[in-house]
Amino acid sequence: MTNASAEEGLPHFLRDVPVRRYRLTVAYDGADFFGWQKQEPKGQEPMRTVQGVLEATLIRVMRQPLNLVGASRTDSGVHAEGQTAHFDAASPIPLERMAHAINSKLPGDVEVRSVTETRPDFDAISDAIRKRYRYRLHRLASRPLGTRKLVWHYWEPLELQHMNDAATRLVGTHDIEGLSSAGHGRESTVRTIFACRVEDHGDELHVVIEGDGFLYNTVRIAVGTLIEVGRRRFEPARIDEILATADRRLAGPTAPASGLWLERIWYPDDES
Amino acid sequence: MTNASAEEGLPHFLRDVPVRRYRLTVAYDGADFFGWQKQEPKGQEPMRTVQGVLEATLIRVMRQPLNLVGASRTDSGVHAEGQTAHFDAASPIPLERMAHAINSKLPGDVEVRSVTETRPDFDAISDAIRKRYRYRLHRLASRPLGTRKLVWHYWEPLELQHMNDAATRLVGTHDIEGLSSAGHGRESTVRTIFACRVEDHGDELHVVIEGDGFLYNTVRIAVGTLIEVGRRRFEPARIDEILATADRRLAGPTAPASGLWLERIWYPDDES
Repeated sequence: MTNASAEEGLPHFLRDVPVRRYRLTVAYDGADFFGWQKQEPKGQEPMRTVQGVLEATLIRVMRQPLNLVGASRTDSGVHAEGQTAHFDAASPIPLERMAHAINSKLPGDVEVRSVTETRPDFDAISDAIRKRYRYRLHRLASRPLGTRKLVWHYWEPLELQHMNDAATRLVGTHDIEGLSSAGHGRESTVRTIFACRVEDHGDELHVVIEGDGFLYNTVRIAVGTLIEVGRRRFEPARIDEILATADRRLAGPTAPASGLWLERIWYPDDES
Repeated sequence: MTNASAEEGLPHFLRDVPVRRYRLTVAYDGADFFGWQKQEPKGQEPMRTVQGVLEATLIRVMRQPLNLVGASRTDSGVHAEGQTAHFDAASPIPLERMAHAINSKLPGDVEVRSVTETRPDFDAISDAIRKRYRYRLHRLASRPLGTRKLVWHYWEPLELQHMNDAATRLVGTHDIEGLSSAGHGRESTVRTIFACRVEDHGDELHVVIEGDGFLYNTVRIAVGTLIEVGRRRFEPARIDEILATADRRLAGPTAPASGLWLERIWYPDDES
């Protein structure tokens, strides 16, 4: 454990407080954010992002400079129930009061759901072993008025059984480049999908996908492809073709950001 | 039935179409509206109101000048599932396609749920015989992130039984001036409350009130008063005192607009 006295910019009363690494679970309504990632275009006002807003609040609450590292760089308009992030700080605030201290300074569309102290080498990005996304489709013909930015309004008929047949074909270890937007810039495009299913929630249909990681836009393209299967424009076997050829042109369109939720991220440290 | 040929401003192809009176049921998310009522402050941009947006759309779809009359002038931030309105127009659009024609030109936070042709003397305001409002309280300590503008986040403990005891005392024909904001400007302040109850919906608590009419802010003040009963600051009998004395100072605070929903309006013309 590093001692804070070595740190720059700490108020005097914090100089004997040890620096700890904290892990946050963060929920947000992404509608009014330009995604997670801090963006400060040159010569312009910084854009409102979750990382930007949350980091600025943490700096204010902890009264020291710090960097917030988030596991997933969710896009503009994408929501989260279980984004995970870490930061280092020397703080006298008791752990059980920390979430409240942060939330009382946050705007209403983002909330810290939990704060824990973690090991000094915990890394929210590289330690993540599993992520679950949920995509919400509003199925009624009438509009989702108050929740229109939380779902995708898709009311055309869909054959659920076909969609689940296709979803099952996604499970396994594959090259998923055919389900990603160009320019994702990662070396390996092989990922393991642990689960993929379509759930009937009455007025809503949910597509749930769990994997050890995803490429850029993979979940939204997978949803767009499953929709094409549900409306019988694609056969379920189209999934096998996309995985075998890695050809993006065989997949469906990218579903809109509004329906996408980052639900949970797992780490080796977790109990359950 | 008036013939449209007598009307001003009609395009030529509508001159033989009879003028009819239409009744609309309208739903909206009130968060981004300055209430129902059209507002065009002198020398300023018109404010975005539901009546303003909907009337402008109707004029565009019907291709003629018209006036939209709404039953309830809901306040800024208040929502509706069943606002009712009427207007006169000469239109060749078949009735069954009219809602779709209007909705396709409306923004995402307002929707026409039904259009019917009604009698020429139907009046959405003066013919209303019963209105139901619903007030939604979010009861979890964690924030209502995506729905924060649709509810009131009130997570302190509340005794439901006491609240329902108080709610029952509101039912009947009373002078309800003690449950209204000053300056409502109506002659009689006697109204009949047909039903008032507190419903447990799990993560939410709903206060439902039905009456033949309400004064300004009555529902929000009634909810604020029931909350004070639920947290044991008031006894349920406080309701009797407010009704007997018509003294606003005995009632609770005005609950915020965000949780209020105009759910339904009844007319003598209705079947059920």
